[in-house]
Amino acid sequence: MVDGKLSVAVVGLGRAGHVHLRSLVSLSTKARIAWVVDLNAETAARVAAVHECKATTDIDDALADADLDAVIICSATYTHFDFTMRALNARKAVFTEKPISHDPAELEEVLDVAMRSNLVFCTGYQRRCDKNFRALKQQLDSGAIGSVRLIKCTSRDNPEPPIEYLKVSGGIFHDMLCHDFDMLHFLTGEFPETVYSVGHCYNPQIEAMGDCDTVVVTLKYASGLLATVDTSRVACYGYDQRIEVLGELGMAQANNEHESTVTVATARGYVGAKSAFSFPERYMHTYLTEIAEFVEQVKARRPDPEAVTRRHVILEKVTTAAELSWRLKREVRIADVDELRDKVPVSTLHGPVKTKVPLAA
Amino acid sequence: MVDGKLSVAVVGLGRAGHVHLRSLVSLSTKARIAWVVDLNAETAARVAAVHECKATTDIDDALADADLDAVIICSATYTHFDFTMRALNARKAVFTEKPISHDPAELEEVLDVAMRSNLVFCTGYQRRCDKNFRALKQQLDSGAIGSVRLIKCTSRDNPEPPIEYLKVSGGIFHDMLCHDFDMLHFLTGEFPETVYSVGHCYNPQIEAMGDCDTVVVTLKYASGLLATVDTSRVACYGYDQRIEVLGELGMAQANNEHESTVTVATARGYVGAKSAFSFPERYMHTYLTEIAEFVEQVKARRPDPEAVTRRHVILEKVTTAAELSWRLKREVRIADVDELRDKVPVSTLHGPVKTKVPLAA
Amino acid sequence: MVDGKLSVAVVGLGRAGHVHLRSLVSLSTKARIAWVVDLNAETAARVAAVHECKATTDIDDALADADLDAVIICSATYTHFDFTMRALNARKAVFTEKPISHDPAELEEVLDVAMRSNLVFCTGYQRRCDKNFRALKQQLDSGAIGSVRLIKCTSRDNPEPPIEYLKVSGGIFHDMLCHDFDMLHFLTGEFPETVYSVGHCYNPQIEAMGDCDTVVVTLKYASGLLATVDTSRVACYGYDQRIEVLGELGMAQANNEHESTVTVATARGYVGAKSAFSFPERYMHTYLTEIAEFVEQVKARRPDPEAVTRRHVILEKVTTAAELSWRLKREVRIADVDELRDKVPVSTLHGPVKTKVPLAA
Amino acid sequence: MVDGKLSVAVVGLGRAGHVHLRSLVSLSTKARIAWVVDLNAETAARVAAVHECKATTDIDDALADADLDAVIICSATYTHFDFTMRALNARKAVFTEKPISHDPAELEEVLDVAMRSNLVFCTGYQRRCDKNFRALKQQLDSGAIGSVRLIKCTSRDNPEPPIEYLKVSGGIFHDMLCHDFDMLHFLTGEFPETVYSVGHCYNPQIEAMGDCDTVVVTLKYASGLLATVDTSRVACYGYDQRIEVLGELGMAQANNEHESTVTVATARGYVGAKSAFSFPERYMHTYLTEIAEFVEQVKARRPDPEAVTRRHVILEKVTTAAELSWRLKREVRIADVDELRDKVPVSTLHGPVKTKVPLAA
Repeated sequence: MVDGKLSVAVVGLGRAGHVHLRSLVSLSTKARIAWVVDLNAETAARVAAVHECKATTDIDDALADADLDAVIICSATYTHFDFTMRALNARKAVFTEKPISHDPAELEEVLDVAMRSNLVFCTGYQRRCDKNFRALKQQLDSGAIGSVRLIKCTSRDNPEPPIEYLKVSGGIFHDMLCHDFDMLHFLTGEFPETVYSVGHCYNPQIEAMGDCDTVVVTLKYASGLLATVDTSRVACYGYDQRIEVLGELGMAQANNEHESTVTVATARGYVGAKSAFSFPERYMHTYLTEIAEFVEQVKARRPDPEAVTRRHVILEKVTTAAELSWRLKREVRIADVDELRDKVPVSTLHGPVKTKVPLAA
Repeated sequence: MVDGKLSVAVVGLGRAGHVHLRSLVSLSTKARIAWVVDLNAETAARVAAVHECKATTDIDDALADADLDAVIICSATYTHFDFTMRALNARKAVFTEKPISHDPAELEEVLDVAMRSNLVFCTGYQRRCDKNFRALKQQLDSGAIGSVRLIKCTSRDNPEPPIEYLKVSGGIFHDMLCHDFDMLHFLTGEFPETVYSVGHCYNPQIEAMGDCDTVVVTLKYASGLLATVDTSRVACYGYDQRIEVLGELGMAQANNEHESTVTVATARGYVGAKSAFSFPERYMHTYLTEIAEFVEQVKARRPDPEAVTRRHVILEKVTTAAELSWRLKREVRIADVDELRDKVPVSTLHGPVKTKVPLAA
Repeated sequence: MVDGKLSVAVVGLGRAGHVHLRSLVSLSTKARIAWVVDLNAETAARVAAVHECKATTDIDDALADADLDAVIICSATYTHFDFTMRALNARKAVFTEKPISHDPAELEEVLDVAMRSNLVFCTGYQRRCDKNFRALKQQLDSGAIGSVRLIKCTSRDNPEPPIEYLKVSGGIFHDMLCHDFDMLHFLTGEFPETVYSVGHCYNPQIEAMGDCDTVVVTLKYASGLLATVDTSRVACYGYDQRIEVLGELGMAQANNEHESTVTVATARGYVGAKSAFSFPERYMHTYLTEIAEFVEQVKARRPDPEAVTRRHVILEKVTTAAELSWRLKREVRIADVDELRDKVPVSTLHGPVKTKVPLAA
Repeated sequence: MVDGKLSVAVVGLGRAGHVHLRSLVSLSTKARIAWVVDLNAETAARVAAVHECKATTDIDDALADADLDAVIICSATYTHFDFTMRALNARKAVFTEKPISHDPAELEEVLDVAMRSNLVFCTGYQRRCDKNFRALKQQLDSGAIGSVRLIKCTSRDNPEPPIEYLKVSGGIFHDMLCHDFDMLHFLTGEFPETVYSVGHCYNPQIEAMGDCDTVVVTLKYASGLLATVDTSRVACYGYDQRIEVLGELGMAQANNEHESTVTVATARGYVGAKSAFSFPERYMHTYLTEIAEFVEQVKARRPDPEAVTRRHVILEKVTTAAELSWRLKREVRIADVDELRDKVPVSTLHGPVKTKVPLAA
């Protein structure tokens, strides 16, 4: 820290990188953009000029800066593991976009290093920062609806992502549903015992990839808790992210944000504003909050014990179990995932992790 | 009462008459339709055949029936006073559509007779039976929002009534706003000290009658309470009847009923169902409730002290004051109405009260 | 028909019987209560006195009445099959409460007789008459949201029924979920191929019966359609009956009815009225509508082809499949139900069908 | 402009000053905080250290900086006129908090200078930047509800401001209602012909100042348009800012923002989140928008013709007319304000304008 301001490197200058840069600008009384890193030297130089910071194509240049406190990794998915390990080994606090890795062994390795290092380590499950889902959790924690019996997550994307993205997305289970499984854990602290998935594919291009675009997953927990997640790659009426919780004493619901509070009543009915169009509209505030909280933790040198637990390992298994259930057309026990994984092909991102390849996420 | 069932005459077989007949059918374990009365003998005979009761064109025939317990008067407005007096003098319980009369002296006379007679006497201010406004009053009475500081009534009709009706309606103040002034009294028990009205007329046919179709009235009360009523002869998005109350500790609102609870979300927004189209849709249950409660009161021989008070006299003055304010373009004190009434022409129904003239309301 | 009014017998004078009697009173210009039938002679006589009709303890007395047009069967569940067959064989139109029978062979027999007889035959799946679900279906049929991809039914009872009722209810699948499976058919016209159920039991008394009180069912259809139903024997915040449909072009939702439209805003938030407390509050209008439509069909001698199809047979299989899935902890194909039924014990009402046993439902 | 970034001075480092500083931080790729000005040298120095800019107690120091492009004036109300004139005369673009002045002659003078100067000149009527009111205006402009007939503004503050603030607030008409009169103009482009106000005071401390805390104003326009504004110094259920517009073809409503989208249903009803607590929660985004738009205008050297019209002069008359109506207990014509102003005492801020007095607003 120089002058009480955190010194930060942003690695990967794609869409996510620019979102995080904007957050850092808002936090400029607390943090300073010291480095921007991108495989494309021209991009790195251009962005560095705007933010008056240093540019490089090699993350190690930034990591070698003794004044650097923290790294925000938002480069391509397959680089997350490698860059995270390098940064942790260089004793820098790390914020990395999800997923850290799809390989359970790599996940375990990163978490072991992070835990031993006592460094702040955060992952971009940014829905945990959503003000509505936090308000929902607060209601559950306060006992407003008693013990929780049933949770229904609705998580429908809009607009349908481009085919190029979908090809490297890791599939609907690892790209979308993992967020909902993480949210179920956020709300309850529990992990499921079994999952059952059904799916259908309306878009022939997605079907051709061996993926599907509409999924319902049912989860059963040891406590008796039941949960469902329904997801769709497209919800043409707007991004749709809702959660409903039934408890012994009542029901709590977190509903969508809408573009405005304006309603127009005419002879055709009462028309309310669309829900937020897409994830940037709905979740923009969460991207600021996650970086603001990361900055606070690093400044306070106080890693969040919740962040560095093994939940990433277990939630990866849940996600893979959900995909296996869909492929096998049967209920799958989380305990059986490791064994099944070797027998049944599941989605991967295909491609080894290399340094100095495209960084933009 | 014969066999424990109330014996009832329905006077005037227009729209209101048929609504009350339908209510009596639903109440057939408690009340019996004994007579139907209408100037048109054919109409009376036809309706009597359906309901298996006696028919006449002369209300006195029904009143002469010693077994008759109660009379429901829903004939033309200008007959209300005369028929009510005859029925009360014949010792029958009376339910009469509003207004009893526009003449303050007649109003006083009816109320004196009703009070002295100890007969059940009810008037068709049916909004007092609306389940939503009763739920609102219950909240106010329970102290949920503390002492009341401001009330805003919205009362917009739909569809615009036919010109023939408007010509004999008595004008927007006596036809529509009197219901809202009654509702303000129902909710608070208070009468205003001053009123101020502004209005505009969009329909040239209504303007030609010397009436207007869009009005805002502001009322000031001795307690400090302020109230507004806004009204329109047309609200093309559906019948609109809402009340909002601001209190020391909060706000209570009674909103519209809608045709269904269905919402459709598309790329154009969230579309909710229309509000109930017109007064029959919104208030049908109140017409049943008012007759059910009238039947109960008559069976229990328990006149409602609230119903036969002088509120009708005072509310007539408030209504006339509101019209005078609009015409005079200034605030009018209720205390000045009787004096002004002689100097400024106000709306009347034009025409003396006669018996045996058209009965259908 | 006498004097153009339908002559109707009501069989079974329990809660359902009184609801149907009330409906018939409201329809008294179109139908006449001719007979009431109940095993308890005193009950039958008392009710007959109120409605000025004939009483008997033996349904055959009523069926022998040549003037009788129609029979409404709302006696105990195990009598439905027998009474329906007698009435159809006596050439009377039949309205019977559900279920007709839990025995597939009996179901087939009744439907064959009904179809051949050309008599009006209706069953009490009264949610099909709910104005909100009809409005929802109208939206789907109009194409407002395009082709349907996902349906989510929420169907939570309140208050928890008494243990005595639950013991003879046939279990949560046959007592509650069959209504939702019927609703899914009502909305889409499709039947599912597979079902998967998870359940939990919070009430130990219900668990002791081998039943559960909280269930989530997932259904897969040949068209690609996915559906979920979540149900609970108790929803302490009020009866909860909602449906959400995701289509290619949007989403449609039918929400709950509330006790009033009043909202109270205080420092603790905005408090809206409770949803309707229990099924009578929510569905009372449907009980009137189903009888009104039955009366119209009988008067017009126009059986509803939809009512007498084999859907009852298929939906019984879907319901049994859902129960089997819960017991077997795996996905069950509808096509496998008949085979499984012989191997796995499922819920029954235990007890042969006898005539002249308690009639009240 | 240096390096394409606007050079800005912030004058007055109270609450408003800090809000504007925060906005400028977010806009740091477009604008640079060059000077902070406050009478309190220590405050100025401390804030300058955080933002790495120059500090002074004398606005003229900043105005003498040839590189300075724009001034944001958020010092005490009585300094607005003087500082605005100095800045305009120094050829700087000006954003000033409202009111510019309560003196009609001063208002005219500022506007004349601003119009002749061709400099960007903006005032802090920040509600014009509210996304909901802009969405409402967009609906009106699109013709969604046809020609406008009635507008109802609800504008209730929360929590009640401290007495010290109220003493120098200029009274409820000039402090609160002027915003609503400006909003009515924003939505319609029209100015009223007459106003009528009623008010009551519940807080004895406010009454002792000769002010009131609860007001209803009715406005009449030449076009026939009617409008009401109801306002209260306190709305304990949360800040309440709503607008409802009735048009020929429908109704449009802009409702409150709530703290979250979470609803909790229990046996006591459905509880939705509170509305935003106070004006910073509701309007924070508008403070960013107004500065962002000011920065864009200055960079583009494109004064908004709407901003520098004489609307400030007319709206000051409307506001004064509303206060006069309340004091005189009668309708007041806007055309009569200047004459009445000399005869009837109205609220002022008491105190001559001096330079180098406390700057914090």
